[in-house]
Amino acid sequence: MEKLFQLNSKKNKLKFSVIVTLKKDVLDPQGKVVQNTLANLGMDNLKSIRQGKYFEIDVEEQDQVKAEEKVNQMCEKLLVNLIIEDYKIDKVK
Amino acid sequence: MEKLFQLNSKKNKLKFSVIVTLKKDVLDPQGKVVQNTLANLGMDNLKSIRQGKYFEIDVEEQDQVKAEEKVNQMCEKLLVNLIIEDYKIDKVK
Repeated sequence: MEKLFQLNSKKNKLKFSVIVTLKKDVLDPQGKVVQNTLANLGMDNLKSIRQGKYFEIDVEEQDQVKAEEKVNQMCEKLLVNLIIEDYKIDKVK
Repeated sequence: MEKLFQLNSKKNKLKFSVIVTLKKDVLDPQGKVVQNTLANLGMDNLKSIRQGKYFEIDVEEQDQVKAEEKVNQMCEKLLVNLIIEDYKIDKVK
């Protein structure tokens, strides 16, 4: 009985990853600092580095389409500044 | 001639993405705040959310193995705190 419950609770959870990046033409001062620091550490061959954000989101939902819609809402409401950032949602496993 | 140069310079650049996440047992206060805020915004069904970092790195190098080794060095030297963080390197396209 307990095993069945565990199976169910596992089935109800869907995992998504969200990658948020600055749009191409937006300056990335944080990335620039990292780039300069790496150059000072002697890492040549580094052409450019840009920093973004990463989220791993567990949604309690069986239907993948609905779950993805939820994650999309979260991005638009809070996680992403749509004026300067792009985002990409992926299903994890 | 110019076209040839452009082709060459394009060939010399390899793009990698690096995802840095907190290890499983490390507390993520930032993610917790995001989670509570989303709950307050009325997003139910959210089970958990954890935040990480994302880097997009262009390396001037033709050999993919060498380039990946460079990116790995960057991670260990600066980008990742190996005590509390995991990282994953992927080739982009």
